[in-house]
Amino acid sequence: MCGIVGYIGNEQAAPILLDGLSKLEYRGYDSAGIAVYNGAEIAVAKSRGRLHVLSELTQEGKSLPGTSGIGHTRWATHGSPSDQNAHPHVNKEESIVVVHNGIIENYLKLKKKLEKKGYEFQSETDTEVIAHLLDDYYKGNPLEAITKIMHRMEGSYALGILFKDHPGELYAVRKDSPLIVGRTDGGNIIASDVPAVLKYTRDVVFIENEEIVKMTKEELSFFTVDEEPIEKTTTRIEWDVDAAEKGGYEHFMLKEMYEQPKAITDTVAPRIKEEQIVIEELGMSDEEIKSIQKIMIVACGSAYHAGVTSKYIFEGLARIPVEVDVASEFRYRDPILGDGTLVLIISQSGETADSLAALREAKRKGSKVLGIVNVVGSSIAREADNVMYTWAGPEIAVATTKAYSSQLAALYLLAMKFAGVRGKITPELQREMLSDLRKLPKQVEVLLKQQEKVQKFANRYLAAKDIFFIGRGIDYAISMEGSLKLKEISYIHSEAYAAGELKHGTISLIEEGTLVAAVLTQEDLYKKMISNMVEVRTRGAFVLAITNEGNTEVERAADYVLYIPKTNKYFTNSLAIIPLQLFGYYVSVGRGCDVDKPRNLAKSVTVE
Amino acid sequence: MCGIVGYIGNEQAAPILLDGLSKLEYRGYDSAGIAVYNGAEIAVAKSRGRLHVLSELTQEGKSLPGTSGIGHTRWATHGSPSDQNAHPHVNKEESIVVVHNGIIENYLKLKKKLEKKGYEFQSETDTEVIAHLLDDYYKGNPLEAITKIMHRMEGSYALGILFKDHPGELYAVRKDSPLIVGRTDGGNIIASDVPAVLKYTRDVVFIENEEIVKMTKEELSFFTVDEEPIEKTTTRIEWDVDAAEKGGYEHFMLKEMYEQPKAITDTVAPRIKEEQIVIEELGMSDEEIKSIQKIMIVACGSAYHAGVTSKYIFEGLARIPVEVDVASEFRYRDPILGDGTLVLIISQSGETADSLAALREAKRKGSKVLGIVNVVGSSIAREADNVMYTWAGPEIAVATTKAYSSQLAALYLLAMKFAGVRGKITPELQREMLSDLRKLPKQVEVLLKQQEKVQKFANRYLAAKDIFFIGRGIDYAISMEGSLKLKEISYIHSEAYAAGELKHGTISLIEEGTLVAAVLTQEDLYKKMISNMVEVRTRGAFVLAITNEGNTEVERAADYVLYIPKTNKYFTNSLAIIPLQLFGYYVSVGRGCDVDKPRNLAKSVTVE
Repeated sequence: MCGIVGYIGNEQAAPILLDGLSKLEYRGYDSAGIAVYNGAEIAVAKSRGRLHVLSELTQEGKSLPGTSGIGHTRWATHGSPSDQNAHPHVNKEESIVVVHNGIIENYLKLKKKLEKKGYEFQSETDTEVIAHLLDDYYKGNPLEAITKIMHRMEGSYALGILFKDHPGELYAVRKDSPLIVGRTDGGNIIASDVPAVLKYTRDVVFIENEEIVKMTKEELSFFTVDEEPIEKTTTRIEWDVDAAEKGGYEHFMLKEMYEQPKAITDTVAPRIKEEQIVIEELGMSDEEIKSIQKIMIVACGSAYHAGVTSKYIFEGLARIPVEVDVASEFRYRDPILGDGTLVLIISQSGETADSLAALREAKRKGSKVLGIVNVVGSSIAREADNVMYTWAGPEIAVATTKAYSSQLAALYLLAMKFAGVRGKITPELQREMLSDLRKLPKQVEVLLKQQEKVQKFANRYLAAKDIFFIGRGIDYAISMEGSLKLKEISYIHSEAYAAGELKHGTISLIEEGTLVAAVLTQEDLYKKMISNMVEVRTRGAFVLAITNEGNTEVERAADYVLYIPKTNKYFTNSLAIIPLQLFGYYVSVGRGCDVDKPRNLAKSVTVE
Repeated sequence: MCGIVGYIGNEQAAPILLDGLSKLEYRGYDSAGIAVYNGAEIAVAKSRGRLHVLSELTQEGKSLPGTSGIGHTRWATHGSPSDQNAHPHVNKEESIVVVHNGIIENYLKLKKKLEKKGYEFQSETDTEVIAHLLDDYYKGNPLEAITKIMHRMEGSYALGILFKDHPGELYAVRKDSPLIVGRTDGGNIIASDVPAVLKYTRDVVFIENEEIVKMTKEELSFFTVDEEPIEKTTTRIEWDVDAAEKGGYEHFMLKEMYEQPKAITDTVAPRIKEEQIVIEELGMSDEEIKSIQKIMIVACGSAYHAGVTSKYIFEGLARIPVEVDVASEFRYRDPILGDGTLVLIISQSGETADSLAALREAKRKGSKVLGIVNVVGSSIAREADNVMYTWAGPEIAVATTKAYSSQLAALYLLAMKFAGVRGKITPELQREMLSDLRKLPKQVEVLLKQQEKVQKFANRYLAAKDIFFIGRGIDYAISMEGSLKLKEISYIHSEAYAAGELKHGTISLIEEGTLVAAVLTQEDLYKKMISNMVEVRTRGAFVLAITNEGNTEVERAADYVLYIPKTNKYFTNSLAIIPLQLFGYYVSVGRGCDVDKPRNLAKSVTVE
């Protein structure tokens, strides 16, 4: 979970590397480093902390002259964030320099062997193993050395490599970590993703697993792990990065919350044609839809919560049994995917390593895989049988808001489509639901205006130790996402519970004044929820209720109530999540946390 | 979630009521009360706090003379624990007195109506509504008034009722809360469960839903809600209550932990005959076992965690798809139970209200239901199509240990049985697994001897704010149970996470010194787990590892390691849970908590 970049060409390398890294900082930001060949040797500068520390250290790159180099921004996995553990890593003679995104799983074994041979290690990282391993195999032919270490390493990696005695060349290779190459004017560039190179080029080559790139300033050559040359095609990138600016908002997260109405509209509108749901990218005939026996949803984090929400909808509306699984679990439990199982992989970045691995496992087992992905051309989008894009636009804040909301919207459409084809909803109900669906963006807008009210409430809980979220049914799914929003950016330990399960243990944590946020948007569960609210309140909890307009009965069991507008019972998540996002946001702001880049986290989780 | 008791006969009522309540205290213990007819009026004594407060208040019952009465021990649901909210509740004239176990869901509506009629309420409870409602309907015929209120009340209840102008009679009725009647020498007795009456009689009548009992000291009569008389049969209780003593241990929980080897042996041994697994109570032919398409496991709390563990075993070993659901969620999500779905309900008490409701829902939908239950003759045992008992003996501590361990053992047997019949394991593998299974009790015994070591370690964490448990696959299931054990009795906020999911949010909660307990008993997941341990350790966490003997590699990534003996990969939960139980126990002891009766909790959760 790091970002890598590399440049070789006519320009000074260091400023381009620093600029590219600034676009990749969402992938990790606990330390950064660059290496540039200065005509005689490879100079390395690296430092713990945000990228600006490195910029100052190198005088915006001026102190490292030269026209070829590599750079790295880190999200620590092996070894704490420190100067020493920052990349690039080098061999003893500093003649081979490496940046790495991924995890070398057998690094302990490799390290032991190298130590026996006399290699000394300066850092705690798995990456340093690569530098020494290259040193061990290098006999003057970079390509040969690279293919040899590929056979030895287990795990995932995208590497950028410089060899001092091949000064006009830059090497890169990937396996299970992303890597792209761009052809610039008078040079070539590599990076972990497309936005990092858009300032310099729109002509991009996507590198596949176990492909090696050799770059000079004029030429790009590609090789297999057997050193055989391969042809690659260049893709022209049409999209825009202007969006990736804060646009006057204090934080990306707040800006992205306010982009939710647009994200929902952009995801929904193009897929409703003459009151029919048309999902062209689905690539499934009505017959295929009718033959689905089971849906297996696999995702991580918030995307997993969107999946949990949709289970209720696919089952309730389309009557298709659904199993939802955390991607890191799915892959290793030898899941039973019978005939007629459709696997749905949900991911904002399309690069989530666990989800990608799950996708491959599902395909290996012969299942059809549909991706629900935000980033066009990402690994999951490319490897899924079909992909339904969420049109949320680039999301920068680590805590997802608009991507999550557009995932929900896409899932609503999909569930309604399936239900329609399988004859489980009447045309009248579908029309009514579509009408409700089209009202959602406006309703979200109205809820966002409660900003100040939620902020005032949030300010009371800045010192909270623990906060609980409870709900039943689909409201439990909302609670999970509300709890995650809060904890990931405010560092307050919050936990979501199925309200009926509280009394089997967690209720013993309730103390005088503990905040319990109760979500109750499902009319048939109001009474049961009120019983649970009374249970915790009886034990001293302060109860915040989030419920539908008109359910004033709840005020007898809650201390504070936030209302959401009426919508179809399956769509309430899209509304109830708004005050919870605002709550998490303002608690984080009030506590002085780094809202957009919370500690220990990265936007796109490309390690397992 | 309360206990009720009632007596009418030749003896003094109050001492019998107090004694019965002492046996029911596991059902709730935040307040208690009794009411006795003294020849002129009904005298009521009640008090907040444990039962002994009431005993002192009434001079062990001497201050309330009389030979008919009712009693109650409370676990607060509506209204905080207080003298006023304690039962019994009375009408204004104190001529009708009621004790109640359950929840009246429409009490707010009923209360409003009664208030309009001029009734004044003294408490915040739902129960007081019943007293006034009876008053409103009572025209001299108790039976008539009782049937009338039954039509008005929604929710669950077991009631004991005295009418001042019918002094020789005691009434009781139930719906969705347990109630039994015993015939004593010279009288009759009611209670929430059998152990409360065993001192006085072994002849018991089980009351079914919506049945009414009218008791005099000589006679028992039973009626339907239409006031029609019904015949009931008497059951002779053969089992023993001597077991329910601490036997020298400081707490019931510790005693019950030490009874785990026996509980596992008693559950397993009778079901292995000549190296074959014979589960006679199963009531399923080989053909039926072969035709299972899916298993749906429904449970609450620790029983749910046993269910999650068994999902990996049923799927991995028998290749039957399994869905595990929290009972309170299952019931309300209109689950899809296709042909060939076997529903498994797991419950220690057999009275867990949510699980019982789920059982009924499953039966209503036509599924076959198998109960895995510890208490013989309990509601779930009686209503399931078949029941496989766990032979753990009576469990008194609120935090389950031996019942959980015996649930696991029963599930192992069931999964192996299914796998065998479906031809998924070879006779050799089965023999090997049975051999491992028989070794478990001895291995648990050895692990329990680590007591002191775990206690020393636990003492370091008495002041912890948050503790995390991580694992992958079956180890995630163990983590969930380990986390619950700790939080329910120590009040430290702990949470279990699928280790691969940490980086999608929770990892931001890790601070310098945060304890993370990592469980790694699955060899094929060692490497991935070590990566996750390194991730949290890199961010300052103190890592406790629980792993298999021989996996010394882990010491490079952990700060403290506890080893468990080698066993089959599906049985590791039974061993890894032991140090986690001990850890939870000693943290609770060290913090001075009431280990056996944690705040806010009750042993058997008979409300939803």
